[in-house]
Amino acid sequence: MSMPIFRRLAGEVFKLSRRPHPPLRPLPSHEVRPFSSTVAPQFNFQSAFREAASKSKSHPNPPRNPRRLRRLPVLAAGGGLLTFVAALLQPTATPVPLEMRPEPTPSPCAERAPSDSDDGLPRYRISEVKQHGPGSERPWVIYEDKVYDITDWVGAHPGGEVILRAAGSSIEPYWNIFSIHKSPYVREILDQYLIGRIHPDDLLDGRPSQEYVEDPFETDPERDGRLRVITQKPCNAETPADELAESFLTPNEVFYVRNHMWVPVVEEARADDHTISIELPNGDVKSYTLRDLKARFKHRTVSAVLQCSGNRRKDMTEYARKTNGLQWTVGAISCAKWEGVRLRDVLADAGLSLDDPGDDAQHVQFSGLEAYGASIPIAPVLDPRGDVLLAFNMNDQPLPRDHGFPLRVIVPGHVAARCVKWVNKIVVSDEESQTQWQRRDYKCFGPNETSQDWDKYKSIQEMPVTSAITRARLKELPPSHISGTPGRSGGQANNSDGLEGQVVQLEGYAYSGGGHGIQRVDVSLDGGKTWDQAKLLDDSKLEKGSKAWCWKRWRYEGTLPPATGTGSGEKKTTFVVKATDDAYNTQPEKYTDIYNLRGNLATAWHRVQFDCTGAEKRNQAPKNLGKSG
Amino acid sequence: MSMPIFRRLAGEVFKLSRRPHPPLRPLPSHEVRPFSSTVAPQFNFQSAFREAASKSKSHPNPPRNPRRLRRLPVLAAGGGLLTFVAALLQPTATPVPLEMRPEPTPSPCAERAPSDSDDGLPRYRISEVKQHGPGSERPWVIYEDKVYDITDWVGAHPGGEVILRAAGSSIEPYWNIFSIHKSPYVREILDQYLIGRIHPDDLLDGRPSQEYVEDPFETDPERDGRLRVITQKPCNAETPADELAESFLTPNEVFYVRNHMWVPVVEEARADDHTISIELPNGDVKSYTLRDLKARFKHRTVSAVLQCSGNRRKDMTEYARKTNGLQWTVGAISCAKWEGVRLRDVLADAGLSLDDPGDDAQHVQFSGLEAYGASIPIAPVLDPRGDVLLAFNMNDQPLPRDHGFPLRVIVPGHVAARCVKWVNKIVVSDEESQTQWQRRDYKCFGPNETSQDWDKYKSIQEMPVTSAITRARLKELPPSHISGTPGRSGGQANNSDGLEGQVVQLEGYAYSGGGHGIQRVDVSLDGGKTWDQAKLLDDSKLEKGSKAWCWKRWRYEGTLPPATGTGSGEKKTTFVVKATDDAYNTQPEKYTDIYNLRGNLATAWHRVQFDCTGAEKRNQAPKNLGKSG
Repeated sequence: MSMPIFRRLAGEVFKLSRRPHPPLRPLPSHEVRPFSSTVAPQFNFQSAFREAASKSKSHPNPPRNPRRLRRLPVLAAGGGLLTFVAALLQPTATPVPLEMRPEPTPSPCAERAPSDSDDGLPRYRISEVKQHGPGSERPWVIYEDKVYDITDWVGAHPGGEVILRAAGSSIEPYWNIFSIHKSPYVREILDQYLIGRIHPDDLLDGRPSQEYVEDPFETDPERDGRLRVITQKPCNAETPADELAESFLTPNEVFYVRNHMWVPVVEEARADDHTISIELPNGDVKSYTLRDLKARFKHRTVSAVLQCSGNRRKDMTEYARKTNGLQWTVGAISCAKWEGVRLRDVLADAGLSLDDPGDDAQHVQFSGLEAYGASIPIAPVLDPRGDVLLAFNMNDQPLPRDHGFPLRVIVPGHVAARCVKWVNKIVVSDEESQTQWQRRDYKCFGPNETSQDWDKYKSIQEMPVTSAITRARLKELPPSHISGTPGRSGGQANNSDGLEGQVVQLEGYAYSGGGHGIQRVDVSLDGGKTWDQAKLLDDSKLEKGSKAWCWKRWRYEGTLPPATGTGSGEKKTTFVVKATDDAYNTQPEKYTDIYNLRGNLATAWHRVQFDCTGAEKRNQAPKNLGKSG
Repeated sequence: MSMPIFRRLAGEVFKLSRRPHPPLRPLPSHEVRPFSSTVAPQFNFQSAFREAASKSKSHPNPPRNPRRLRRLPVLAAGGGLLTFVAALLQPTATPVPLEMRPEPTPSPCAERAPSDSDDGLPRYRISEVKQHGPGSERPWVIYEDKVYDITDWVGAHPGGEVILRAAGSSIEPYWNIFSIHKSPYVREILDQYLIGRIHPDDLLDGRPSQEYVEDPFETDPERDGRLRVITQKPCNAETPADELAESFLTPNEVFYVRNHMWVPVVEEARADDHTISIELPNGDVKSYTLRDLKARFKHRTVSAVLQCSGNRRKDMTEYARKTNGLQWTVGAISCAKWEGVRLRDVLADAGLSLDDPGDDAQHVQFSGLEAYGASIPIAPVLDPRGDVLLAFNMNDQPLPRDHGFPLRVIVPGHVAARCVKWVNKIVVSDEESQTQWQRRDYKCFGPNETSQDWDKYKSIQEMPVTSAITRARLKELPPSHISGTPGRSGGQANNSDGLEGQVVQLEGYAYSGGGHGIQRVDVSLDGGKTWDQAKLLDDSKLEKGSKAWCWKRWRYEGTLPPATGTGSGEKKTTFVVKATDDAYNTQPEKYTDIYNLRGNLATAWHRVQFDCTGAEKRNQAPKNLGKSG
């Protein structure tokens, strides 16, 4: 099987994108509103795109022979917009799984195009279009059955040159990710660049046959079957609860995966050539290959938890109301040992004064190969105890592709969304990253706030204290009855009643951001009426780093209290856990009081309902149950 | 009026106590248990004191002529024990206000002593005892009508040489502070040093007349009448709620006062001679006068909140159950601008390597002139952004005496108990301060934990997020009805019913430790059913420092919801406030879930009951009420 042209060219595209770029222009606030209508109906998408369109050199009647034109320096112009892609091209909050099949119902175009030969437009074979891939002088894309020469649009594209990802093929799979494009305004712009149609022989039901359409996720890696997959494309999959309790360092293959887009392809043999550029506030740019980083800077090992801001979002949905985002249970968190170099050492080498970085060095922005971007305040980078790394190893192995191969930022104690994977560009700036993920996501509004003034609150950085029950087992009885997250429905069949007095064993984790250790884990077997303290496991030999960057695993053994009858005849009790960190911050009781539409930071007490009657329902996480040893 | 001998000699005592001391010996754990029987009944006070007694040179038959003996080097021996005083001599959790009058009922001694001349002991005039004050060769103390020569006991005294504070006078006022001494075991020890009795002419009802007894608090400063006094001796007084809301920087005269003992006397004219010793892990000691500090180190200004760990303890008592400690409402918190020098600069000058301080530099211990002591981890001291100061000015004035004149430690973001006042000694060590206040207080146990394993939890350092309502006013009506803290009983009379629909104005503060800014303040006028956000005041011009060390003042205006009837016919609604900091930690809902016997960190949602019927009760904080302008 030959490698699709896209794959061969992708490397070139992103090599170009690593050229030094001029400082980002500040975005007018209306341009970076969120796009989901439920989130921010006020975003004037039309004017944003039209503004961009008006700045581009319009080509209503594009020349038929591309070779006559010299290639426009789109990358120089568009380069500064690279991170802008994220601000404007937001994936839907819950990514839509991609279906590569053409729609079964014929589109309006499909009815016209094959027979409509009076449009005066040439017909191109798909093989011709493929010649106009990401690295070509004139990149083309297909939409429905039409062919567009986007050469002059790339520089003006609000999302930057990520649009080249689709060059030589259909742009539709990407619009399924960045669904904002599915609007008449975008079509209006695209139509300016129409140069022809696909030859009828290459069409099936009016569109390019699936075999010709690049699947952006085709090159994604294989994943471990134990991961609890929430979306396939992009891959979002949580660590099974059972694995969370099992080990302090989560094995790489079951480390939770949170991808905003596809997984960039970097050949193993060429990994050491991977290049990262560092841009300072004065405009100086210095580039380092991974080989440079490994050879020139002292290696540092830090063990640290990464956690998605949406961990336990599903609980917020169930206990409060609908939230907008991936419905994680307790497994959007994992812990690993990271090896890399300190970002502060690299910044110092690039010319930044660590003692006096200047007033315009307030934030450190990161961009990844797939166009994701985010930033952090500079303080943890400057602080040697902040342990911010450019990491290349994870649990003594090279980073797996899903986790940023060959290079990833690790910001211990901060939300994982700032730990940019496949990082290839760092900018020290006086402002936050312009991306959507930095400015229009990963924030928490008040429980009543339905209209979201994104500038009002800071982006999530350090994480608040949280905890979860990841496994519950009866000590003496056969595999039994647990419901709630993990596994809200009933457990395996058990005909015995009266589990009162039986010994139950609970396991779980507790974690707080900002380097705060866990002080105490309170457990209740009766829904919060009475409390006891769990035993904290001593994993100190595996804790590496200047502060408490890891979770604390805990165990608890207690006697089941009398169950409470419910209307349906079931008898249940609720296990509850809450943690307190060493700043004595503790978790809120209810989800309703911290509710936010995006379902971020669902840190309310974690509750697991335990069914004492043994109603025969399959548990969502059956491995969680079983007689203890 | 002549200055009492005590006052003249006090300076000498503490000058001696500033001599460099050998490193503290680690205390056997049984020696540093708490003393209140409700807190730690397991403390073997008898054996601790007896062990000390056995090490002292016993004087069952002391020589009658003290002058024949050379003075024993008690200070050299006892010096290392200076901070030990705090470990062993714990004031009662709620200090007993001192009554200097002799007990009205005659003591057993009173019946015997005057006429009992067959004990063979000499009779001393009080004027003679006064000759044996803190600076004398042979210090004496009086207990009841008896005179003791404690020269040989000072070096063995578990509390160190603070015992000299009582020399030349009665020891009883100090035993009223350090009430542990009121036990037969202590009397047994003391009795070994009996040398005589007070002459009957100087006795009133069998004890020294009050005019002869030194009041340890006699030299305490005058306080502002607006302070809400909880105890007079030692002085513990909170800022009135009205003043909290009024200004960002709390004026010095109403800044809350938290004293564990008396206020040391340092003459203004000699303040610059005040000397602080710095001891490094290698044993090196370097001393600096205040003059040195001011002249040799760069001055730094930081505005920061100080807050007692017991702030709002009264709420925990009322909403959960009895707590052990000063019953603060919302005013054990204030904010000031502090000027001083960075402790890190001084430590560097004293010889500590800031880059590589060594593994035995883990904690920084502070001792004050009055024998209080505490410590902090070294990290915030080393961190230039930690802003840890040796402060000499407060709101552009020299420190008031109540706040540490002439020198105080300021550890922004940490509990005020670590901001040692009247600081005269700093030790960089591999362990925490040995004091009671560091190891057996200022910790939080779980809500169920009645037996307190003090080694289990870390001492409180950084503070968790909290908030409070400090003022509530009706916008349109005359002064009205507020109950709850502040002011749990009803407000002024108001005969109109049906305040529903009226506009109420709330004011207050929100604060989080560790340099975390306040992100959001949620307010509810209906007991937490619905929420809205308060307006955060912009006090940024007054915020000085590397991180968010200050509180955020907030204002809220909303419409009164329908009141809920109570059993007694009253109609009430409850105002609630909760804050979220920039790590998105938020406050717990209920006090019961964070209950701890010491009542520390009562950070549950702050609730104020509002009486909608206008029952005529005086408010505890009437200034909080009134029609707004």
